Amino acid sequence: MSARPIVIDTDPGIDDALAIMLAAACPEVDLRGIVAVAGNVGLEHTSANAAALADLLRLDVPIGRGASGPLCRADVDFAPDVHGENGLAGYRLPASTRTLQPGVPLLARLIEESPDPVTVVPIGPLTNIAMLVNEFPKAARKVERFVIMGGGTLDVPGNVTPVAEFNIWFDPDAAARVFAFGVPITMVGLNATHQALVGRKHLPGLFASGGPVAEIVGRLLDGYYDVDGDPGAAMPQHDSLAIAAVVDPAVLTTVPAFVDVETAGRLTRGMTVVDLSDASGEPNCDVAMQVDVQRFRHLLDTRLSALDASLRQV
Amino acid sequence: MSARPIVIDTDPGIDDALAIMLAAACPEVDLRGIVAVAGNVGLEHTSANAAALADLLRLDVPIGRGASGPLCRADVDFAPDVHGENGLAGYRLPASTRTLQPGVPLLARLIEESPDPVTVVPIGPLTNIAMLVNEFPKAARKVERFVIMGGGTLDVPGNVTPVAEFNIWFDPDAAARVFAFGVPITMVGLNATHQALVGRKHLPGLFASGGPVAEIVGRLLDGYYDVDGDPGAAMPQHDSLAIAAVVDPAVLTTVPAFVDVETAGRLTRGMTVVDLSDASGEPNCDVAMQVDVQRFRHLLDTRLSALDASLRQV
Amino acid sequence: MSARPIVIDTDPGIDDALAIMLAAACPEVDLRGIVAVAGNVGLEHTSANAAALADLLRLDVPIGRGASGPLCRADVDFAPDVHGENGLAGYRLPASTRTLQPGVPLLARLIEESPDPVTVVPIGPLTNIAMLVNEFPKAARKVERFVIMGGGTLDVPGNVTPVAEFNIWFDPDAAARVFAFGVPITMVGLNATHQALVGRKHLPGLFASGGPVAEIVGRLLDGYYDVDGDPGAAMPQHDSLAIAAVVDPAVLTTVPAFVDVETAGRLTRGMTVVDLSDASGEPNCDVAMQVDVQRFRHLLDTRLSALDASLRQV
Amino acid sequence: MSARPIVIDTDPGIDDALAIMLAAACPEVDLRGIVAVAGNVGLEHTSANAAALADLLRLDVPIGRGASGPLCRADVDFAPDVHGENGLAGYRLPASTRTLQPGVPLLARLIEESPDPVTVVPIGPLTNIAMLVNEFPKAARKVERFVIMGGGTLDVPGNVTPVAEFNIWFDPDAAARVFAFGVPITMVGLNATHQALVGRKHLPGLFASGGPVAEIVGRLLDGYYDVDGDPGAAMPQHDSLAIAAVVDPAVLTTVPAFVDVETAGRLTRGMTVVDLSDASGEPNCDVAMQVDVQRFRHLLDTRLSALDASLRQV
Repeated sequence: MSARPIVIDTDPGIDDALAIMLAAACPEVDLRGIVAVAGNVGLEHTSANAAALADLLRLDVPIGRGASGPLCRADVDFAPDVHGENGLAGYRLPASTRTLQPGVPLLARLIEESPDPVTVVPIGPLTNIAMLVNEFPKAARKVERFVIMGGGTLDVPGNVTPVAEFNIWFDPDAAARVFAFGVPITMVGLNATHQALVGRKHLPGLFASGGPVAEIVGRLLDGYYDVDGDPGAAMPQHDSLAIAAVVDPAVLTTVPAFVDVETAGRLTRGMTVVDLSDASGEPNCDVAMQVDVQRFRHLLDTRLSALDASLRQV
Repeated sequence: MSARPIVIDTDPGIDDALAIMLAAACPEVDLRGIVAVAGNVGLEHTSANAAALADLLRLDVPIGRGASGPLCRADVDFAPDVHGENGLAGYRLPASTRTLQPGVPLLARLIEESPDPVTVVPIGPLTNIAMLVNEFPKAARKVERFVIMGGGTLDVPGNVTPVAEFNIWFDPDAAARVFAFGVPITMVGLNATHQALVGRKHLPGLFASGGPVAEIVGRLLDGYYDVDGDPGAAMPQHDSLAIAAVVDPAVLTTVPAFVDVETAGRLTRGMTVVDLSDASGEPNCDVAMQVDVQRFRHLLDTRLSALDASLRQV
Repeated sequence: MSARPIVIDTDPGIDDALAIMLAAACPEVDLRGIVAVAGNVGLEHTSANAAALADLLRLDVPIGRGASGPLCRADVDFAPDVHGENGLAGYRLPASTRTLQPGVPLLARLIEESPDPVTVVPIGPLTNIAMLVNEFPKAARKVERFVIMGGGTLDVPGNVTPVAEFNIWFDPDAAARVFAFGVPITMVGLNATHQALVGRKHLPGLFASGGPVAEIVGRLLDGYYDVDGDPGAAMPQHDSLAIAAVVDPAVLTTVPAFVDVETAGRLTRGMTVVDLSDASGEPNCDVAMQVDVQRFRHLLDTRLSALDASLRQV
Repeated sequence: MSARPIVIDTDPGIDDALAIMLAAACPEVDLRGIVAVAGNVGLEHTSANAAALADLLRLDVPIGRGASGPLCRADVDFAPDVHGENGLAGYRLPASTRTLQPGVPLLARLIEESPDPVTVVPIGPLTNIAMLVNEFPKAARKVERFVIMGGGTLDVPGNVTPVAEFNIWFDPDAAARVFAFGVPITMVGLNATHQALVGRKHLPGLFASGGPVAEIVGRLLDGYYDVDGDPGAAMPQHDSLAIAAVVDPAVLTTVPAFVDVETAGRLTRGMTVVDLSDASGEPNCDVAMQVDVQRFRHLLDTRLSALDASLRQV
């Protein structure tokens, strides 16, 4: 079976970096490009980080620079307290000299040019995807599936507000458009990612290896964990779980549901309202419910170790 | 210890009727008046039902007629599919000949005239209470506590929409005003009432007694249960749980939290956003979390049996 | 012909005081009561001012105290920069010892008890009227007409924001309810009142008379005019024009139109959207368009002079 | 003096066609490209019409296909009753065989590549421009000025609703972003275009000439006028007035003002709130107030006649 073509839309961001490394490490997927979007930090950082990560991983794929902020709001609120000034918790990769391409047209081209349908994995705000839908509807309709890290069920609905997750909250209008578009969606929300707890101890192979991936993952993880002050603890893996869901669908159990996004609330803007009954409408989304954590940790450890070894060899 | 003075604000409504009967049956509380509000059905029905119930229970208290609809919306959506055309699932009590009083002024007078602070128990939409706060702020500030049946935590946030409970959804603007007012509040939401499952089998004393209360409770319960088609099952008790929380606080475990009401959402209007962390603001509410079901059923059964017996005697 | 029974709902407020004096001065209307509402200043001031004015004018009518703020918003924004701390530009009338009645029930009672239909003249925010509609719909439907000072056409739509007039902006939800209720309405908006320019020179009879009304009108006018720093200028008369429209309808030319109130806008909350075409719906309002200024000034001068003389005599 | 480089962003649309012809006819401007957007009719029509018009006018410029609908709303409401099924009142130009380019990147490229700053003239909804601002902020900031046909002052605020003009109403979120962006703006609104009345009689030169432009302008005008049923009357020219404002600024008198767009209203969504005072904020826009109609008609007639002659000659 041939590798599944994917494009990652991302705002790296620490766990975005881990997700990109996982995608680079897995032969089951064929990473065709990375497009940056504003989110965790501003576009100047997310696009520079995306390019620097591609350099580090020796990825021969185009890097795009997409939206510099949400569709409608000009007053953007980034999350530098979580991700540090530059989005990588202060960790600085060598600056890339790559030429970045306009991001939304790049998304469209990668989708259009692929003989096999492309899976798009948005792990940042959905602004670029909403623009793709609006500017390149023909390309957007060719997408195999959007595997989105964002939102959450009532079990864990929010991390920015009591009921809203960051990626959706940052651009709820974009998210609402994408959920309404009609292409199949897998939603990997906080209710799933909060089951995907990973710490240094769960990646024994990687940290035994001790190459460049181990170093950077370790530094990134430690920086990230510092948010809550406990470097030893296992922490939820958000973005890499979405990649894992493409690489090995058995990592997740999903249920079909109708998902819509609150765009107008005073307290609830950015909430994903997941109706697991059939009351609100036809299911438009496969919602991740259960995570096979052992399987996920094993995937992370084996693939990142192998990547680490291969990068060391060169 | 003297009985706690209470006033019930209500939209009977089947489980409202049960709640009123429980209040009438408990010597721990001194029911000073009943004020009707539009909700489950229109005000003409809820006020007539309130008066008829007072007749049945031989209550010598004033009955008020309050708001005929929500504070702001003129286009009201009642819930007759749950409560039947007249709000009592078709059960018809003899029409009362009582003179009803203007409801909001009655609320104010009952609060003002009481030497001991009055506990107000709103078990319908909060329209009358918001008007009391606005028209009679001095009286409203004398209230001991509002024990509200409405809303819910994320465990069970809604019954009208996936995230909104009927009483709050019917008039979210009123609810937001009441939660922001500053008088202590106990919120008995769906997350609690869905633990308070009661069926015929849990009221053996009452149904052995076989008097008028047994007859009416049985008929009301059966009519209510027909909604889901299973007359034998145990069903959540919403409004009577709020009365029980006043009569015997040990029936509930509560936690302090900041509660606000979404008034503007497209999908989430009427959602109670309960922040159990301290992120959104100072706690303004004691939120019911755990129900001691055995204790609640025992309270219902013993008190309603006794009421039944006393009514039979006369 | 007998005098037309009227009730004034008001937030005095300087021009409210003038309006009340005009109503007291005109035998064509029979002022049955005055109900205060929060608006220009807080309810404690508007109700005290209403009572003090009734004392001054020796009015033997009940005074009511209504809503202490808008229907839905708890965060009230008064306009003391225009009306001074106490609402009367610092002018202090002797405090009244009258007992004030609950305002909304008083409105209902005055309407219900009158053999002839009552004209209600709201010259403050419409909160009390919306509560009347909700709590006492039967009484509200007996109202002959609401003659409202509020809003404006596109010619002069706003004074608080570029498109919203104070009375409507202060409680747009209440206004929307009243405009949708179905009782005939005359809207005396800024487009009309800005034609009703009156200065000291236009009231020669009153100021020749030199009694108590002249004194207070002069002081009030001068304080009011100070807002724009030109005590000699003629200024728009808002509230007294609404009274004049009841006393002598020929003072105004009106056209029927459909009027609705923006309750949700970010920039336009409180705007009266007046559709003079038939596109939006059936006319629900007679909108004042042209003012016969000479007639209005003459009415003010002759009636206030006579009142002045009569008060001096006692 | 060299010609001013311009790009037209448009949803042809009948008066868009006239505007494009005027731009093609005027040596004062150098038309560098045309980008289509959804609006009067769907993008499949507006882009096809733009290409067909370019063929007709033998324009050697790139044609772009931009947004297929508003930024946020997926439920689009076109205006085919005004512009006919295909946007040109049924008039069918020969289908173009041109290859269209992605519209937003084309806008960016045309602006970036020009040594002289480009004036962008949006005469349709502002969706493409908002996307340019978001995806290509560096290019957007190089724009000399946006000369926008849209909105209106209170004199003539709306044509779709009593207070909203079509282009702004169709995508108020996009408009709000563009007005807030910071590049100089001239707003040519309905208050100006309703002064720019033009009929067949005002274009004597063109209709004496009788070439292809005369034919098509005549047919377009007649089709357009049919909306109101009076083919002989003079009608407002919306889009061509914006072009005229670039070609010959003396056609308009403007005043600086702060303009914002209502994005959230129930009745007022899409209203341009023009604050001619300094109350709301620093002026961000030059608002067209007065039109020199004779000058405008003369410009139209002489330039279109000349274009007609030149096209006939080939």
